[in-house]
Amino acid sequence: MAEQPLMPREQDLPLFVDLYELAMAQAYWRSGMDGEAVFSLFFRKLPEHRNFILACGQQQVARVIQSLRFTDDHIHRLRQLERFDDRFLDWLRHWRFTGSVQAVPEGTPVFPQEPLLEVRAPVIEAQILESLVMNYVHLESTLASKAVRHVLAAEGRPVVDFGMRRMHGLDSAWRGVRAYRIAGLAGTSNIQAGLDFGLPVKGTMAHSFVQACEDEMAAFRLYAELYPGTTLLVDTYDTQGAVRNIIRWLRENPEVDIGGIRLDSGNLGDEARACRRLLDEAGLDRIRIMASGGLDEYQIEALVSSGAPIDGFGVGTAIGVANDAPAIELAYKLTAYGGEPRMKKSTGKRSWPCPKQVFRQLDANGHMQGDLIAEAHEQGDGTPLLQPLMADGRLVEGAIASLEDQVTHARESVAALPPEQKRLAPAREAYPVRFSESLKQQQVRTLERIAHLQEWHYSDQDE
Amino acid sequence: MAEQPLMPREQDLPLFVDLYELAMAQAYWRSGMDGEAVFSLFFRKLPEHRNFILACGQQQVARVIQSLRFTDDHIHRLRQLERFDDRFLDWLRHWRFTGSVQAVPEGTPVFPQEPLLEVRAPVIEAQILESLVMNYVHLESTLASKAVRHVLAAEGRPVVDFGMRRMHGLDSAWRGVRAYRIAGLAGTSNIQAGLDFGLPVKGTMAHSFVQACEDEMAAFRLYAELYPGTTLLVDTYDTQGAVRNIIRWLRENPEVDIGGIRLDSGNLGDEARACRRLLDEAGLDRIRIMASGGLDEYQIEALVSSGAPIDGFGVGTAIGVANDAPAIELAYKLTAYGGEPRMKKSTGKRSWPCPKQVFRQLDANGHMQGDLIAEAHEQGDGTPLLQPLMADGRLVEGAIASLEDQVTHARESVAALPPEQKRLAPAREAYPVRFSESLKQQQVRTLERIAHLQEWHYSDQDE
Repeated sequence: MAEQPLMPREQDLPLFVDLYELAMAQAYWRSGMDGEAVFSLFFRKLPEHRNFILACGQQQVARVIQSLRFTDDHIHRLRQLERFDDRFLDWLRHWRFTGSVQAVPEGTPVFPQEPLLEVRAPVIEAQILESLVMNYVHLESTLASKAVRHVLAAEGRPVVDFGMRRMHGLDSAWRGVRAYRIAGLAGTSNIQAGLDFGLPVKGTMAHSFVQACEDEMAAFRLYAELYPGTTLLVDTYDTQGAVRNIIRWLRENPEVDIGGIRLDSGNLGDEARACRRLLDEAGLDRIRIMASGGLDEYQIEALVSSGAPIDGFGVGTAIGVANDAPAIELAYKLTAYGGEPRMKKSTGKRSWPCPKQVFRQLDANGHMQGDLIAEAHEQGDGTPLLQPLMADGRLVEGAIASLEDQVTHARESVAALPPEQKRLAPAREAYPVRFSESLKQQQVRTLERIAHLQEWHYSDQDE
Repeated sequence: MAEQPLMPREQDLPLFVDLYELAMAQAYWRSGMDGEAVFSLFFRKLPEHRNFILACGQQQVARVIQSLRFTDDHIHRLRQLERFDDRFLDWLRHWRFTGSVQAVPEGTPVFPQEPLLEVRAPVIEAQILESLVMNYVHLESTLASKAVRHVLAAEGRPVVDFGMRRMHGLDSAWRGVRAYRIAGLAGTSNIQAGLDFGLPVKGTMAHSFVQACEDEMAAFRLYAELYPGTTLLVDTYDTQGAVRNIIRWLRENPEVDIGGIRLDSGNLGDEARACRRLLDEAGLDRIRIMASGGLDEYQIEALVSSGAPIDGFGVGTAIGVANDAPAIELAYKLTAYGGEPRMKKSTGKRSWPCPKQVFRQLDANGHMQGDLIAEAHEQGDGTPLLQPLMADGRLVEGAIASLEDQVTHARESVAALPPEQKRLAPAREAYPVRFSESLKQQQVRTLERIAHLQEWHYSDQDE
């Protein structure tokens, strides 16, 4: 095999497609099925312990969709699969997406059965997008939904991403930081992603640095000289011993500028209280205490509610892989074809037909009261969540919001959640999501019709 | 902010670094600390429910390390962080890795405290690599370790990857397929990755295709015509109804070539038995039954042990995100500096000092009997697992194995595991891993020495 690149490349995007999508595309092409399809991206149920999903990644995937072109190189590779007719490959070579996409704004809390995004296009085009649409929105929504729980638990204290090392590859480590910014994180250790997505880049020192230096204080002195206001990692050998050394040093060298200390092991609440007391007694109340080391939202909540004097949190693995819910049951399903509602009735996976709109009702104070999932053409009370993102295969002018605006939107939207949904624990009452009467009737009618679509074959005959 | 690329790029690799690594690098540079460091990549404990980790990704990261160069563009971006001295950035501009790397072969089962990889280089160089080394090896080891459990559970039946849609980004969806191939999967739905890594590309149809077609049989007829030997998805409306229709159709059209059916919902064991009976009664025992739909290794094991007539499995989310253990507690720790052993003694995170070798003892039948973790210079009984991968900053000639050889190595290595470790359930007895006497003494001696490294500051004085 030829030497591979070290990472997948943007130019490879069109072939990040599941074989069955192109197999179906060829079948549609061959049979002349060019009716308009509507596909809906939604999830069937919330992950256990979650009260909402923060939708994220829709703009990114719209940009991907707009960019998709099969080049001669792609066609050449597809030919190797010995599945595709040359005329179909020729059609694919000249294809570009011509449909429309609507989506909820990034940073919007969403609930089961609510479309995060809908694609409306000739069926062959909408089908080709399945895996890419899911991969893009799934990743960012998964990571943003986990990160925002840490932001809620920290009650205003900054939460910084330290997760790159255990995130699933560099695309995740990159787009994840975009999702973290939307979710409200205060910084990241990841230089590339932080610079690309405008999230402040943060970092202190590792234990290895303290271990390599002649002794712990030599390490601290070197950092203080290079990085005024730095945060010192104090748990390499003995946490309170390190803090006593720092206090003596600062007493003798009042010009030294230390901004904080970081605790990374042990009982963080106890250690923080002990260190805070030592620092305060020495008049060093200006020195802040950061905590890290296998933290998740539950530990942050426990530390905050116990009054531990911790001023900020560094979080790695928990947000990096969304460890308790690394996947959302996101699905991309056909809801209409040729103007007719469609659905599947597979056991346990019955879906809702029809293009949709979601109306979110807010009270006078802007708090969320409930959502109504309706047919797309219906009028409902409240704010319609799905907004045009692409039309005629192109991004709608003005539909791409700045990351800054998305951060604001996410903050306000999360603030508007009912208190039950903002808790880390499972809500005692699910957020109210209703279906419109018209949509319910469509589901009944569609079920009747699709029963017929299979049964006539064997029941109308002598089986 | 300028328009972003749609994916991170290979040229961005050097800036996928945590800020603290470059901050420490500058501190080493400034203070003239250029002693040789040894960093070890290992995990402290197995994820719950796991009996081994299948090491994977070491060759990929060696290629990454060899490629690393900071260009003018990188330097320009680093300057924006306002942390780095121009002379340090100039040094970085001309840096390339000059050290050595040893690693266990990819596809080797490993256990807690065993190095998967060791970097030996001037401390500044080894430190810069931390996040990239971890990210590369963590991703592939996480996914391979999960996938191999499915292969074990399927007892020889093919397992195919359907996971791209819910994998964490496209780097994961790409390198994951490499890891799946090493772990013994039989195919993938992902065209790009399957072609790049030589894993057969597989796929059938989605429910949407059946729903969009005039009726279910129209969908089946179209596929049979286009793809002789195809597998038909039969659960869109009513599974056994679909199978009855297929039987009637094949009776009337014996020339039609259907290779299999796929079940994707319901009780897969019951459905498979019912479908198998219908097919066999119709003389269609040649038609194979594939199962998919939220499967994991436990469900596969239950289906196989119950004798369900399923010939192959498609697995998505479970392997795509390693849903029960999406992260391994992989750590990259300093074990020696300037020829002296180093370790940390942080609460709960005490590490083992010294460069190491792992000796694996096999019995006469090639079955694993136990491992010995020793100092690198020691001689031990058994096969030394750590092998040279890079020397003087370059890949060692012949150290990069072909993927085919890695697949074979992994299959043989996994076959050599004790039966307890091959089970899905937690092993009643941990695999025996011992530390050499010399290494134990080094840990004691190093602990004594590092206690001193901190305490003299405050205990030798009047504190």
